[in-house]
Amino acid sequence: MTMSIKVGVIGYGYWGPNLLRNIANDPNCTVVALAERRRDGRERAARSFPGLRTCEDASEVIAMADVDAVVIATPVATHFPLARAALLAGKHVLVEKPICSTVAEGEELVALAARLGLTLMVDHTFLFTGAVKTITQTVRSGRLGKVCYFDSMRVNLGLFQTDVNCLWDLAPHDLSIIDHLMDDQIVGIDVTGYCHLNAGLPDMVYMTLHYASDLVAHFNLSWMSPMKVRRFVIGGKKQMLIWDDLDQDQKIRIYDSGIEVRSEDQRATIVPDYRVGDIYSPRVPRGEALAGVISHFVAVIRGQETSIMDGACGLKVVKVLEEAQKLLDRNLAEIATRRAQAPR
Amino acid sequence: MTMSIKVGVIGYGYWGPNLLRNIANDPNCTVVALAERRRDGRERAARSFPGLRTCEDASEVIAMADVDAVVIATPVATHFPLARAALLAGKHVLVEKPICSTVAEGEELVALAARLGLTLMVDHTFLFTGAVKTITQTVRSGRLGKVCYFDSMRVNLGLFQTDVNCLWDLAPHDLSIIDHLMDDQIVGIDVTGYCHLNAGLPDMVYMTLHYASDLVAHFNLSWMSPMKVRRFVIGGKKQMLIWDDLDQDQKIRIYDSGIEVRSEDQRATIVPDYRVGDIYSPRVPRGEALAGVISHFVAVIRGQETSIMDGACGLKVVKVLEEAQKLLDRNLAEIATRRAQAPR
Amino acid sequence: MTMSIKVGVIGYGYWGPNLLRNIANDPNCTVVALAERRRDGRERAARSFPGLRTCEDASEVIAMADVDAVVIATPVATHFPLARAALLAGKHVLVEKPICSTVAEGEELVALAARLGLTLMVDHTFLFTGAVKTITQTVRSGRLGKVCYFDSMRVNLGLFQTDVNCLWDLAPHDLSIIDHLMDDQIVGIDVTGYCHLNAGLPDMVYMTLHYASDLVAHFNLSWMSPMKVRRFVIGGKKQMLIWDDLDQDQKIRIYDSGIEVRSEDQRATIVPDYRVGDIYSPRVPRGEALAGVISHFVAVIRGQETSIMDGACGLKVVKVLEEAQKLLDRNLAEIATRRAQAPR
Amino acid sequence: MTMSIKVGVIGYGYWGPNLLRNIANDPNCTVVALAERRRDGRERAARSFPGLRTCEDASEVIAMADVDAVVIATPVATHFPLARAALLAGKHVLVEKPICSTVAEGEELVALAARLGLTLMVDHTFLFTGAVKTITQTVRSGRLGKVCYFDSMRVNLGLFQTDVNCLWDLAPHDLSIIDHLMDDQIVGIDVTGYCHLNAGLPDMVYMTLHYASDLVAHFNLSWMSPMKVRRFVIGGKKQMLIWDDLDQDQKIRIYDSGIEVRSEDQRATIVPDYRVGDIYSPRVPRGEALAGVISHFVAVIRGQETSIMDGACGLKVVKVLEEAQKLLDRNLAEIATRRAQAPR
Repeated sequence: MTMSIKVGVIGYGYWGPNLLRNIANDPNCTVVALAERRRDGRERAARSFPGLRTCEDASEVIAMADVDAVVIATPVATHFPLARAALLAGKHVLVEKPICSTVAEGEELVALAARLGLTLMVDHTFLFTGAVKTITQTVRSGRLGKVCYFDSMRVNLGLFQTDVNCLWDLAPHDLSIIDHLMDDQIVGIDVTGYCHLNAGLPDMVYMTLHYASDLVAHFNLSWMSPMKVRRFVIGGKKQMLIWDDLDQDQKIRIYDSGIEVRSEDQRATIVPDYRVGDIYSPRVPRGEALAGVISHFVAVIRGQETSIMDGACGLKVVKVLEEAQKLLDRNLAEIATRRAQAPR
Repeated sequence: MTMSIKVGVIGYGYWGPNLLRNIANDPNCTVVALAERRRDGRERAARSFPGLRTCEDASEVIAMADVDAVVIATPVATHFPLARAALLAGKHVLVEKPICSTVAEGEELVALAARLGLTLMVDHTFLFTGAVKTITQTVRSGRLGKVCYFDSMRVNLGLFQTDVNCLWDLAPHDLSIIDHLMDDQIVGIDVTGYCHLNAGLPDMVYMTLHYASDLVAHFNLSWMSPMKVRRFVIGGKKQMLIWDDLDQDQKIRIYDSGIEVRSEDQRATIVPDYRVGDIYSPRVPRGEALAGVISHFVAVIRGQETSIMDGACGLKVVKVLEEAQKLLDRNLAEIATRRAQAPR
Repeated sequence: MTMSIKVGVIGYGYWGPNLLRNIANDPNCTVVALAERRRDGRERAARSFPGLRTCEDASEVIAMADVDAVVIATPVATHFPLARAALLAGKHVLVEKPICSTVAEGEELVALAARLGLTLMVDHTFLFTGAVKTITQTVRSGRLGKVCYFDSMRVNLGLFQTDVNCLWDLAPHDLSIIDHLMDDQIVGIDVTGYCHLNAGLPDMVYMTLHYASDLVAHFNLSWMSPMKVRRFVIGGKKQMLIWDDLDQDQKIRIYDSGIEVRSEDQRATIVPDYRVGDIYSPRVPRGEALAGVISHFVAVIRGQETSIMDGACGLKVVKVLEEAQKLLDRNLAEIATRRAQAPR
Repeated sequence: MTMSIKVGVIGYGYWGPNLLRNIANDPNCTVVALAERRRDGRERAARSFPGLRTCEDASEVIAMADVDAVVIATPVATHFPLARAALLAGKHVLVEKPICSTVAEGEELVALAARLGLTLMVDHTFLFTGAVKTITQTVRSGRLGKVCYFDSMRVNLGLFQTDVNCLWDLAPHDLSIIDHLMDDQIVGIDVTGYCHLNAGLPDMVYMTLHYASDLVAHFNLSWMSPMKVRRFVIGGKKQMLIWDDLDQDQKIRIYDSGIEVRSEDQRATIVPDYRVGDIYSPRVPRGEALAGVISHFVAVIRGQETSIMDGACGLKVVKVLEEAQKLLDRNLAEIATRRAQAPR
C-alpha cells in the first residue's frame, strides 16, 4: 500500500483555505500542519480542520520530520526564501504563482530541486480547469489551423494586491496558458500602463508579445474596469476560439470562421477571403481545478506523472514578467518626463 | 425664403448611397449631381434617384456652376486633390473620414478653406449618434468625475479596406470622439500591431495614447476577430461608463463605481477604497446620425452653427494617425528584424 | 420569354412600403398600381416609386385590366371582402396574415380560389427567414428526435394594434411555423389573458395547445413587456433547439441535451437520465424573407412551385385563432364574474 | 447573557449540509444533533462537523431534552408527521418548503403551534435574498405604480424530484414571493402541463393566477428546458422590473417604461401612450440568504421579530398548490381522453 503524502501548508490568506480543503479531500495526501502569522487565521483553520497542528513560524513546518511536502501560499516576496529553505530541508515544494520575484531566484530554485532530486512545482491552477483542458485539446487537434494570435482581456474592479502590481498579479495566468499551448520564443515585448493610485504600482497594463514563429499575443490587464471581463481569444488560420470564463452556458466557442488569401493578382494586391461560419460550443467539464493540481503534485512526487507546471515553467513566466517590468518602468518614466515637459 | 443648398456628390461606393439618401431627405439641400467612375454605380444611383445628373469624372461635378457644395466619398488617397479642387472652384466641402492622408495635405486644406471663406468639414459621423451625444452630456455634466482613461475595442472579421490599413480605417472614430470630449494634448504614443495577410498592411493594431493631463487611452483595433465588438469604456474618478454599440437594450451603462484612495498609513502604503454600486442606463435617442451631419453641414455653410467637425478637427486626427503610423512602421520593422535573427 | 407578373398593391401602412420595394426588386414581377385611402401615403409612395399609378379606392386596382395579381396589406377586417372581390375579378391574391377574421370567410376564399383556378396565398413571412429554414431542416433531419414541445415567448412593449388583439397579432407567426413543421392535430386549447387598457382587447395572452400525438405548445404573447423577447424553444427527445431571433451572433442554438428514461426499477419509479452536452450554432443565412415570399408567389402563380403558405394554411391558423378567441372570451368573462363576486 | 438556541436537524440530503453550516456559523444557535436515515450521510456530516451527535431515527432527535428547535429537511411527504411530533414534544420548528402536502395538514400544524405557543416557520429562503429584498423595497416605495402582472419563468434541465412534481418543486418560490409582496386574493386559476417521463408526474407546468384586485400572475415551470432561466417580471403602471437571477452584473433592472391610457376619444377607442425610458439597475446586496433565515428563526423564537415566513405563510402556498393540483389533474385527464379519442 502506498503511503499518504504528508503536507504542511504555509499561509492561510485568500487561497490557503482552498488549498487545505483540497489537500484534505485528496485520498493520497494529508494536511498535517499549517504556519500562519496571523492568529485569527490560525484559529479559523483550527475550527475548520480539527486536529490540525498550527504554528506562527513557517520554519517550524519546514523543520517537521513527518512533513513530506510543503505548499507555499504567502506574499510573492517570501516565495523564494521559503521554497529554498523547504528544498534544503528535503521537502517537495508547491508554490503559488508567480513562483518567485526574480529570474535569479527562479534559476536557483530550479537548480536546487534538480540537484536534490525533489519536486518543485508552481500552482498554475488554470491548466487544470475544464476550459484550458478543452482549449489544449482543440489547439493540439489542429482544428484551428496555425495559431496566429492570442488576445486576452483580464479586467475587473479592485482586488488590489499590496505586494505585486497588476502585471504580476494577472499576467501569470495567460503566460502559463500560452506557454502550455505553444512551443515558441518571445522576440519582442511592447508594454505600457497607467498608475491611478500609486505612482509605483501600475493598475492598468497593456502588453504585446511578439513570438519568433509569427505569433502575437496582446494582454489588456486592469484592476480599474467597472465590469469584470475574462476573455481569451485564439485566432487560427482555419478557425477561431473565444474563451469567456464568465459565461456559464458557453465558456468556449469555436468559430468556423477564418481569413485566407484567396488570390494575388498581378498588381500584388491581396484579395482576402473571409468565411463566417457555424459556432460550436463544446461542453466544458466541471470540477475544481485545484483538486487536479493537488492530485498532480502527489503523482509527480511519486514519479507517476511528469509535471506540466514544474519549476522551469514557473521560471519561464518570471522571465517574461521581469523583462516586461523593466520595459514598463522605462516606458512609464519616459511618459512621466514628457508629461512634466508638456506646455500647460 | 432661404435657398436650398445644391450638393454634388463624388463617389458611390459603400457610403455614397447613404449620403445621397440623407441629402435628398434634408429639406434644406438638394442633390444635383453625382460623379462615380464605375458605370454600374451610376446606373444604380440613377434608378434610386430619378432625375439625378451623373457623370464619370469628378472634375465635371466640381465645375458645375449650380453646385454650392461637394461631398467627397472616395478612397482616402483621393480626398486631398478632390477637396482642394473643389475649394479652389469655390465650393463648400464635406469629406469622409479620414479627411486626407498626410498632415501636410490637411494643413493646406484648412488654410485654403480659411483663406477662401469656405466651409470645410469632415464626416465624423459618430458625433451625431445618440450614444455619443449622451456620452458628451454625461462627461460634461461632471457626473463621472475627472476622466482617467479610455479603453476602446473595435474589432470584427474582415471588411478589409484596400486603400488603408486597420489603423486608418478604425482609429478615426475613437480619435474624433475623444477629441470631441476632451481638451487635452498627446505626449506619448505606444503602438504595435500585426499583419496577417499583407506585410505592409497591419490588420491588427494595439495603440496607447498618453495625454498631458494624466489621461491614457488604449485602442484594440482588428479586422481579424471572430466576433464583432464595439466597446468604449470611460473610467472616471467617480463613475465609469461603458458604451457597447451592439447592445440594443443598453447601449450605455453608467456604473456608480469608483476607486479612491482612502488613506495612507504610516508605512506609506495606499489603501484603496472601491465601490461597486448601481448601474444606470439612460435611454439613447435613436435616429440616423448621418442626417444630423448633413443638417449640420448646411447650417455651418449658412453661418447658423459653428462646426463640431471642421477641417481642424479632421487635421488633428490625421496628425495622430501620421505619427502613430511612423511609430508602427518602426515597431514592425524591428520585430521583423528580431524574428529574422531568432534562432530556429 | 416569360411575361412579368403585374401586381397591384392595396394598403400602404406599416408593411406596404416593404411589399412595394420587394415586388419592385423581383425580376419576375412589376408593381403597377397602389390603392391607399390616406393621401399622404399615396404621396410618399409616388415619391419613392416614380411612375406608380395610385388611387384612393381599392376597387379601382382590382378592376384594372392589366393587373394580374393583388397584394392586400390592409386592416384584418377588410381582408375578406378585398380578397373575395379580387378573386372574383380573376386576380391571383396574396394577403397579409391573418388571412381573414373568421373560419367561414376563410373557407369561402379557399373554395373560391379553387373553383376559379387562382392562386390564393397568405404572407406567413417567417417561413422564408433563414432561421425557420434552418429549423425546418433540423427538425426534418431527425436530429432532435421526436419533438415533444414548443415553447414560444413573443413579447414587447406597445405597438398596439387597433383592429386586432394581441392573440391575433402575435400568434399567427408561431402557429404558421408549427403547422409548417409538424403534421399534427390540436385536441385541446387552454387560453387565458389580461386586458390592461381595454376590457375587450387582451394585450397579454397565455395559450397552450395540446396535440393528438403527445405534443404540447405554449405561447406567452404580450404587448406589455418592458423587454422585447422573441424566443422559440423546440424540445426533442434527443436534442433541443432555441431560436432567439434577437441574437445577432447565434440566432439558433442546438443543445445536445436530452432526457431519456434510463430504467424503471421494481417500485415502478422512473429514473430519468439527462445529458447536458455541446451546443452547436449553425450559421443562419441572411437575406430579406419578404423577397422569398414574393418570389414564391410568382413561382406558384406560374405553376413552378407548390405553395407552402396557400389559403388552406392561412385557414388552419384562423381556425385555431377563432377557437382560442371563443375560449378566451369565456375565460375572461368568468374571471370578471369572480372578481365582481370577490369579497372586498 | 442570552442562551444559545440548541438545534436538531432532520435530513442530510441536498439542503441539509447548507442548513448545518449556517446554523453552525450563527452566533445565537448551535447544532447539537442530526437524524439521517442513510449511513453515508451521517458519516459525511460527522466528518464535516466533529462532535455532532448523529442518529438514524428522527424521533430520537425530537425526543432529546436539550434540543430547543428542530429543522426539517426531508422529503415533503414526511414534513407533516415530523413537524407535528416536534411541536408536540415542545420544540420550535423550521420546515423546508413546501411546509406540508395538504391544506388539512397545514391547518393542523398552524393551530398546534398557536395552541402550544411555539414558533412554526417555513424556509421560504428567497425572501432573504438581496434580490427579493430589493424588489420588496421597490414595490413598496410605489416606484412601479400599481402592480398589474407578474410573469415568472423558472425552467432548467433535470434535477428531477422523486417525491413531488414540477409544480410543487418550483412554484413555492414564486408563490411565497408574490404573497410577500402583495396583499391580494386569488379568484381564478388556469393550469395545464405535460408529463414527458411519467404520466402521473408533470415535468412542465403552465399556470396563471387571477387575483381579486385586477392582477394576473403567469408561471412557466419546467424541468425540460435546455437552458436554465430564472426570470421574474413585475409589470407596474408606471415602471416595470425584471429580475434575472442568473445575471451576475444586473440581477435587477427597473425599466422607466410604462403604458398609460392617454385619452379616450368619442368613438370610445383607447389611445395608449407607451414610454421607453431609462433602465436603472440597483446594486443587489450579496450574502447567503439561508444565514438570514436562520438568524430570523432564532429572533422569532426569542420574540425579537415577527416572522415573515410563519406557518400561515406556508399554509397559503399549500392552498394554492392543492387547488392548482386538483385543476391540473382534471385538465390532464381531459387532454388524455381527447387524445385517446382523436382520429388517427
